[in-house]
Amino acid sequence: MLAFQFVEWQRPGEIRDVPVPEPGAGEVLVKVGGAGACHSDLHLLELPAGSRSFAPPFTLGHENAGWVEKLGSGATGFAPGDAVIVYGPWGCGLCMNCRQGMENYCQTTGLPSPGGLGGTNGGMAEYLLVPSTRYLIPLGELDPREAAPLSDAGLTSYHAVKRSVHLLGPASTAVVIGAGGLGQMAIQVLKALSGATTVVAVDTSEDKLKIAKSMGADEALISGDGAVTRIKDMTKGQGAELVLDLVGIIPTLAMAAQVARVLGHLTVVGVGSAALPVNFSSPPHECAVASPFWGSIPELIDVIELAKAGKIRMLVEHFTLDEAANAYQLLHDGKIQGRAVITPHA
Amino acid sequence: MLAFQFVEWQRPGEIRDVPVPEPGAGEVLVKVGGAGACHSDLHLLELPAGSRSFAPPFTLGHENAGWVEKLGSGATGFAPGDAVIVYGPWGCGLCMNCRQGMENYCQTTGLPSPGGLGGTNGGMAEYLLVPSTRYLIPLGELDPREAAPLSDAGLTSYHAVKRSVHLLGPASTAVVIGAGGLGQMAIQVLKALSGATTVVAVDTSEDKLKIAKSMGADEALISGDGAVTRIKDMTKGQGAELVLDLVGIIPTLAMAAQVARVLGHLTVVGVGSAALPVNFSSPPHECAVASPFWGSIPELIDVIELAKAGKIRMLVEHFTLDEAANAYQLLHDGKIQGRAVITPHA
Amino acid sequence: MLAFQFVEWQRPGEIRDVPVPEPGAGEVLVKVGGAGACHSDLHLLELPAGSRSFAPPFTLGHENAGWVEKLGSGATGFAPGDAVIVYGPWGCGLCMNCRQGMENYCQTTGLPSPGGLGGTNGGMAEYLLVPSTRYLIPLGELDPREAAPLSDAGLTSYHAVKRSVHLLGPASTAVVIGAGGLGQMAIQVLKALSGATTVVAVDTSEDKLKIAKSMGADEALISGDGAVTRIKDMTKGQGAELVLDLVGIIPTLAMAAQVARVLGHLTVVGVGSAALPVNFSSPPHECAVASPFWGSIPELIDVIELAKAGKIRMLVEHFTLDEAANAYQLLHDGKIQGRAVITPHA
Amino acid sequence: MLAFQFVEWQRPGEIRDVPVPEPGAGEVLVKVGGAGACHSDLHLLELPAGSRSFAPPFTLGHENAGWVEKLGSGATGFAPGDAVIVYGPWGCGLCMNCRQGMENYCQTTGLPSPGGLGGTNGGMAEYLLVPSTRYLIPLGELDPREAAPLSDAGLTSYHAVKRSVHLLGPASTAVVIGAGGLGQMAIQVLKALSGATTVVAVDTSEDKLKIAKSMGADEALISGDGAVTRIKDMTKGQGAELVLDLVGIIPTLAMAAQVARVLGHLTVVGVGSAALPVNFSSPPHECAVASPFWGSIPELIDVIELAKAGKIRMLVEHFTLDEAANAYQLLHDGKIQGRAVITPHA
Repeated sequence: MLAFQFVEWQRPGEIRDVPVPEPGAGEVLVKVGGAGACHSDLHLLELPAGSRSFAPPFTLGHENAGWVEKLGSGATGFAPGDAVIVYGPWGCGLCMNCRQGMENYCQTTGLPSPGGLGGTNGGMAEYLLVPSTRYLIPLGELDPREAAPLSDAGLTSYHAVKRSVHLLGPASTAVVIGAGGLGQMAIQVLKALSGATTVVAVDTSEDKLKIAKSMGADEALISGDGAVTRIKDMTKGQGAELVLDLVGIIPTLAMAAQVARVLGHLTVVGVGSAALPVNFSSPPHECAVASPFWGSIPELIDVIELAKAGKIRMLVEHFTLDEAANAYQLLHDGKIQGRAVITPHA
Repeated sequence: MLAFQFVEWQRPGEIRDVPVPEPGAGEVLVKVGGAGACHSDLHLLELPAGSRSFAPPFTLGHENAGWVEKLGSGATGFAPGDAVIVYGPWGCGLCMNCRQGMENYCQTTGLPSPGGLGGTNGGMAEYLLVPSTRYLIPLGELDPREAAPLSDAGLTSYHAVKRSVHLLGPASTAVVIGAGGLGQMAIQVLKALSGATTVVAVDTSEDKLKIAKSMGADEALISGDGAVTRIKDMTKGQGAELVLDLVGIIPTLAMAAQVARVLGHLTVVGVGSAALPVNFSSPPHECAVASPFWGSIPELIDVIELAKAGKIRMLVEHFTLDEAANAYQLLHDGKIQGRAVITPHA
Repeated sequence: MLAFQFVEWQRPGEIRDVPVPEPGAGEVLVKVGGAGACHSDLHLLELPAGSRSFAPPFTLGHENAGWVEKLGSGATGFAPGDAVIVYGPWGCGLCMNCRQGMENYCQTTGLPSPGGLGGTNGGMAEYLLVPSTRYLIPLGELDPREAAPLSDAGLTSYHAVKRSVHLLGPASTAVVIGAGGLGQMAIQVLKALSGATTVVAVDTSEDKLKIAKSMGADEALISGDGAVTRIKDMTKGQGAELVLDLVGIIPTLAMAAQVARVLGHLTVVGVGSAALPVNFSSPPHECAVASPFWGSIPELIDVIELAKAGKIRMLVEHFTLDEAANAYQLLHDGKIQGRAVITPHA
Repeated sequence: MLAFQFVEWQRPGEIRDVPVPEPGAGEVLVKVGGAGACHSDLHLLELPAGSRSFAPPFTLGHENAGWVEKLGSGATGFAPGDAVIVYGPWGCGLCMNCRQGMENYCQTTGLPSPGGLGGTNGGMAEYLLVPSTRYLIPLGELDPREAAPLSDAGLTSYHAVKRSVHLLGPASTAVVIGAGGLGQMAIQVLKALSGATTVVAVDTSEDKLKIAKSMGADEALISGDGAVTRIKDMTKGQGAELVLDLVGIIPTLAMAAQVARVLGHLTVVGVGSAALPVNFSSPPHECAVASPFWGSIPELIDVIELAKAGKIRMLVEHFTLDEAANAYQLLHDGKIQGRAVITPHA
């Protein structure tokens, strides 16, 4: 079968012909419907040789959905043809966190995750081998080509909001800094989980703010001191209960600390170059600063439920396997709205 | 001043002329804008002589809003003319619960609450004496004549929903049994606090179900076995995460136990004649059954915020002090939609 | 191999010779160290023919621990010889609750649980077939013959306490009604999880109260009005934050409702003949009444950690497979202190 | 009466003769039993002129306890002679946070707090004027001379632990960096609130570590790489669920980030010179970093309950008003074990 692979450090990915994997005991072969192209893949391809414990070649793609093709012995609960989304961070399944479905926080070395983070083959191929049915969530009527990015962009945003949703009661405010793919999803999740929160989107791009508004943001502000002043005014000087920084660079973190509130949450999702200094003086007292990673299996079920109910959707652009290199080039050049999805069987 | 009073056990209330109270240290005199007439007042008027520790005469009305008229010495934070709503269950202010604003659950005998529950004068008069500024919440631009019922019907419903809102994530269901005044408020609060929950209203009256739909209910069902079947179907056989019984009679409680879910909440707000039997067999495992009373001061602030944001509103019918007896008669006869409010200065 | 089986409705169990099972893909064969004998087994043996969907013959024992004997293909994470305890309520592994390790609340029909509740073979045999490694928790240095009852008596008590531990701050009180096997465990768990709670044990037997004291109960009271008065006095008239009824008959439930507190928890663990009526009048307002079933996999990990740390222990009496019928007779006659454990390889 | 006052910027405090205040409406005059001397007072005395909005002269002492001397009109719930502790951070009483007893996080400018933080007179005098009974907690049999430091050192530590107590289940670990007055209190609170947590104290002083052990620390480690290694070993490489940094300088913050765990809490209580950088790389994912300020009124009630139950105690050294300057000198020189308390009526 064809697969788009990371073949050499610091070189673009390439299409290669590889064998179709055969599912062993407990494993499942998934016919890939869609595999999202993520900025983190670009970072991966640019790594200096030997900088990680894994090594090329392997197939890219950690954001996958498709249809069950074949079940290994002992794998039950799914039938060939079932549309499924694939949970990405694979753990050991047996530590305290994995036992609760939080394999993103596996307490052992876990399994190597697919598509780059762990060095095993990902989903940018005709078929993907999944080690356990516990990584599959039924999609029902949802189209895997549309749903694939929900497994990372969707789940990461959902998790970042969900952990703070108890703060978002009447007269509360949530600020989303960065209105790209994850930000758009975060805005929708905020509106879906809390009917009472005012959602403020902040970005440097008027275009992205327009999309943010169409996704449900109550207020859309161009980054800068004016945005800080406006948020302070809106919150009677108190700041926002939840501030999500989806960028993570010096100016966004500084703004986040200024607009957060006493007893609030300041969540750094963006993997930028900077760090936020925390002490008694800043951010406001008892505002909890944390940087989460991805989300849990139960949360992915929630994400799929929200998508089924029409409450969240990703903007998606489709590419065939042959066009994968091109998709990454467009992503690199900032020309993808929402998410680029490779569709091997489109 | 004129006041509508409970003058004798088992006799209707009457208009009487009483002195305007003078606020002492820490107290506040409120010019009454609206005082809601509540079913519990009817029960009060029908009590046999000597059945309670308090005794007539005193002014009715425990659901009050108005304007600050005069502040006693040491009472600060408000100015004459400020529109305020009056928190009803007055406690000691010094026990563990009162210290957190939960004076509805005062752990001492507390103060006698106004308008009947404790035997002190309530708000169906030109002026109401309030013992502390901590019972006043600013109304801002809201009209006290409209807002008054938020202090009981609104707050009771809000509290009953709020304590369970963590259960109301994606694909969740909340069932409201009884679509009268409290039920209408509960439906609106559910939609305001959770954007993702499906709200089901159940009642014996088609008219009330119509109102329920207009208030935001996603589904409105006539009581009976069909309603149970429908809710089971909607929830894939699991039942609802939250069931609010605002009636509290044998058939509603039985239905509640049937449509609740494992790990859910079954909350009995209605003060009917029946009780729900709980053991290992029913309701479903670890479904928590509880019967709350009113709500807290911080929650009343939340209620007012929701009203200011236009997310909740009570259907209100206004009556002058002279018409108070008539209002209670209509209430008794089931002819009030929403809430009857006495407006002494209308 | 030898197995102690339920062979016919309404007849005592019998020793029979059955084949040693062979683990299939994902399955694990466990060499049984200990299998607890539970009152629920006695109820099972007394059932009228055809009263359940399952049918004899099958091996009894749902409270099991031992050593990994053989791993089926694809079963990883354990090695032969590892001491393990077996989680009892087997679910589907794929529903929302199972995904979080709460297979006790599986939302589908799940797997038939071992040893009677579902009709598959349990652990009163030389070997037990376990369908997945996710039901195994490593015991480390703990002896399976001692640890077995932790999987039910231990886990059930732990879960019942754990869900309420947030109520058990300074100056709080927990009441344990029924100081048998589960009660003794509950007392130890209460002391292990909260250093600040006063634990009150209530029973009709002086002997059990003595054991309760030795397990850490701060106060031990003979059932009756005196106990109610004493608990009210100890709690300044407020009642206890947590009341666990491990019996579930009319007098214990009535007592529970009397000694519980506003905003407390009243948890009915005992599967007695009665039900507790709940409404606006009783138990105290917003005291949540619930009846849980068993516990979750993550909680069983916690239980094992507490046992390893020496904070909880079961009183255990050992019997060989040959003596199993005798063990049940002693259990039936109330002559077992703590728990009877069958040890097929003792 | 005599009072120890801040009389001039950058000059030591002085004894002065000032009038006994007269309590107005709602106010209470407290006869001071003990007033703790805090490091923050030293900082205050060293401030450059005009660096704050308040100005000398005023009486020092924000950590106060004593006996009710006289109640202003309308002040109820206490009687002359009652032993009380005085809650320190005075707010407006009417904002959302104050309404829940969190006046430490008053959302308005609030009242000026006593003894320096706000510029009104504190407790290092024969009498202290308290603006409301809501700042008084009954001490019962506790001696105000011993209890005074519970209102700040005690409450601050308690709050810092309490907000994280849900993390401290079986096999959990809490690390307390800095075993001075607050650290000693934190250790005791940890043992009081969770029976299952392993408490590790870290300090540069062997003497303080000895005290830490005597206060209940399970492990006491000299600061440095060895401590990090040991904590990692104890926690199987995962790190601690809760890390309290009571110092707040570069090496302690760096250590804190190294020994905290994924999903843990890292709480910076110490007002040192440094700040902890937080991003995707460090501390571990979703470890929440926050810096709280003091505690709430309900929490002070909890602190007093723990002290009454003998579960916490401060090491206290007494000084008369005349010796106050000397006490501050000893504090400045690091010669006070625990807390220096001025006792105006000793």
